[in-house]
Amino acid sequence: MKLKRNERIGAIVKILTEHPNKTFTLSYFTEKFNTAKSTLSEDVMLVKSVFERMKLGRVITIPGASGGVRYIPDVSKDEVYNFLQTISKKIQSEDRVLPGGFLYLIDIIYDPDIVASIGNIFASVIDYTNVDYLVTIETKGIPMALMTAKAMNIPLLIIRKNSKISEGSSLGITYVSGTSGTVQTMSLPRRNIKEGSRVILIDDFMRGGGTLKGMHDLMKEFKVEVAATGVLISTTKPEEKMIDNYFSLLELDEQSVKNKVWPNEKIINKISENLNL
Amino acid sequence: MKLKRNERIGAIVKILTEHPNKTFTLSYFTEKFNTAKSTLSEDVMLVKSVFERMKLGRVITIPGASGGVRYIPDVSKDEVYNFLQTISKKIQSEDRVLPGGFLYLIDIIYDPDIVASIGNIFASVIDYTNVDYLVTIETKGIPMALMTAKAMNIPLLIIRKNSKISEGSSLGITYVSGTSGTVQTMSLPRRNIKEGSRVILIDDFMRGGGTLKGMHDLMKEFKVEVAATGVLISTTKPEEKMIDNYFSLLELDEQSVKNKVWPNEKIINKISENLNL
Repeated sequence: MKLKRNERIGAIVKILTEHPNKTFTLSYFTEKFNTAKSTLSEDVMLVKSVFERMKLGRVITIPGASGGVRYIPDVSKDEVYNFLQTISKKIQSEDRVLPGGFLYLIDIIYDPDIVASIGNIFASVIDYTNVDYLVTIETKGIPMALMTAKAMNIPLLIIRKNSKISEGSSLGITYVSGTSGTVQTMSLPRRNIKEGSRVILIDDFMRGGGTLKGMHDLMKEFKVEVAATGVLISTTKPEEKMIDNYFSLLELDEQSVKNKVWPNEKIINKISENLNL
Repeated sequence: MKLKRNERIGAIVKILTEHPNKTFTLSYFTEKFNTAKSTLSEDVMLVKSVFERMKLGRVITIPGASGGVRYIPDVSKDEVYNFLQTISKKIQSEDRVLPGGFLYLIDIIYDPDIVASIGNIFASVIDYTNVDYLVTIETKGIPMALMTAKAMNIPLLIIRKNSKISEGSSLGITYVSGTSGTVQTMSLPRRNIKEGSRVILIDDFMRGGGTLKGMHDLMKEFKVEVAATGVLISTTKPEEKMIDNYFSLLELDEQSVKNKVWPNEKIINKISENLNL
């Protein structure tokens, strides 16, 4: 089968888009398309240029024997700002306050398209070089954590709140959950994670930071380094959290009558520093 | 900005690939690219043709005022067979049997690329016309359920094993879990789902079908119709399951010393009937 240039470009874009941060060798494509390496190099240059011009993320070429081409799902500053503004409005526009003052967020944080965008934003602001695992805790953060792991092309691990017999020997800790004020347990199967690994922690919501502090402590038990921590929403109060150095995409003022939510300025500025998209 | 044809094609493929089953109007693209409708129609025909020739799924055009172009992530019979074979080998090749006879599957069922493929396969064999929600139960099925929801472009709902205060008023049932043999509870917040909806149920593993039976019963409580049920792995014993009419991608013989796993022939054949890819 002989493909035309624009057909090859279509196929290259499809494959790269479906596998963010995966490196494909040029031979992978030359064999697939039955085409010369020089022709394919020109194709790749064209793909690079359209991603750049249309702000669709970045396509990079890696020289050398283990080289190839890779798609990095970076999001532009404007897109991040618009997305976070839209989500903020969605959160505060409707009748979302549940008994106990909790916000109903299920329709947002389980939405496949929304969590895909959240994943790309985390991948645009958090440095995931040499990170071995993306770790979350059940349940509500799992969809956004999976999409972040997909964007970064690193494996996902899920901390369980009860040790499960079907996962083998586990290592666990107890922690105080800020939401319920009770002592709870969290654990991870021993064979999930290797000593000396580096991980990124992702969760959907942080008030005092008790759960994330527990996740940090559990990583310490595994002798694993936390490279970065990301949350979708953090509350303005308490100002003092139990962990430092986290990336929060949205800020929430719970004292405000209308549950005021807004994009975190620091995140928006981080984008321009990193990428100049 | 004036784009060349192959640049427009690159951009169209990127946007369609990232949003399976979402219909984009032609005006969406003509405005984005500042191009004539006739030119864009030719672009779309080229995109259709490359997806077909390279077996990258289907691109369809919908005529009329509410029409446009849509990408359907159908997988070819060969690709499904090869993928399920690879996963089967992976499951039985390593030392995966845990105390109690359970299989260690975390590294497979939390892998972002693997669950993305599983999602595309479920979307290729299950009819999701007029389906309102994709429903799963915490925890291990969530990644594959999310990716299936993404492929089908329908919202995800997650049944909780304990009612959570932060999700508002819930409707719950008790059920007997085959894995532990104990009576457990499962529930879903009332405002998650509307009476009269149609849903698809997805879970990672089925032995007797107790959990899935519970999910069916819970849907009945909500007056919701189950359109289809999909699981990644079902065991050969017991032959009689507590539910009928489910799609199982893999079959597992637990009596076999080496935990023999193989692709479900019915699934493979289903693909050829539906698609002729």
